Amino acid sequence: MKKVDHIGIAVKSIDEALAFYTETLGFRCTAVEEVKSQQVRVAFIDANNVKLELLESLNENGPISKFIEKRGEGIHHIAIGINSIEERISELKEKGVRMVDEVPKEGAGKSLVAFMHPKSGHGVLYELCEKVHMEEK
Amino acid sequence: MKKVDHIGIAVKSIDEALAFYTETLGFRCTAVEEVKSQQVRVAFIDANNVKLELLESLNENGPISKFIEKRGEGIHHIAIGINSIEERISELKEKGVRMVDEVPKEGAGKSLVAFMHPKSGHGVLYELCEKVHMEEK
Repeated sequence: MKKVDHIGIAVKSIDEALAFYTETLGFRCTAVEEVKSQQVRVAFIDANNVKLELLESLNENGPISKFIEKRGEGIHHIAIGINSIEERISELKEKGVRMVDEVPKEGAGKSLVAFMHPKSGHGVLYELCEKVHMEEK
Repeated sequence: MKKVDHIGIAVKSIDEALAFYTETLGFRCTAVEEVKSQQVRVAFIDANNVKLELLESLNENGPISKFIEKRGEGIHHIAIGINSIEERISELKEKGVRMVDEVPKEGAGKSLVAFMHPKSGHGVLYELCEKVHMEEK
């Protein structure tokens, strides 16, 4: 496990939340993109040592929509930057971690991601996140 | 605003949660201390670029106890490392941010802290956190 790649934050509207991050806190928004496979629009905020990932649902039935319905806007997950995601998933499973995703899926910012079950993370939803290099594609 | 100093995580028991962070994720626990003013026992996990702060309540009526009762174990706050905390509080108030703490209070790891109201942070409880240098005391 290398470091915290980003903190995922569920918001109703990126457009409404963005001013807080850029004007109030003074951080920079570096990218906005859609990740259709995860039914989200994503804005990355550069908080210098770590990224904040604002997550807005693309539809009413997506996981972020359901999260906000249940708990309101707020911190959704912590993503840990790693290499060799498939090996990491195997290692975690051997250590008894319950994975939500046993097979990596496409994430934001050219990444492969896999979530651990929050039961294994003492209530925290942890994501494994591997950056995919363009050269490898 | 400089960077994310730490991510605060509410746990029922530091002793029970620690193995997940050290053995499963492979991070290092750098310190455990009590912050009586905030009614918590705190363990710092070094996740390389950012710290994870495990928070265990010292009693049944403390804020972490109430948080866990309401929402279960999980991510509690994001702390932003800053200098000159009183100036930062004034600036944020001028920008319309509602502060939980208008006066800094003692935090873990020789720090002064002040929480913003989660309504101002689009559902996220943000903490300002200034390291207090020994020389200044």
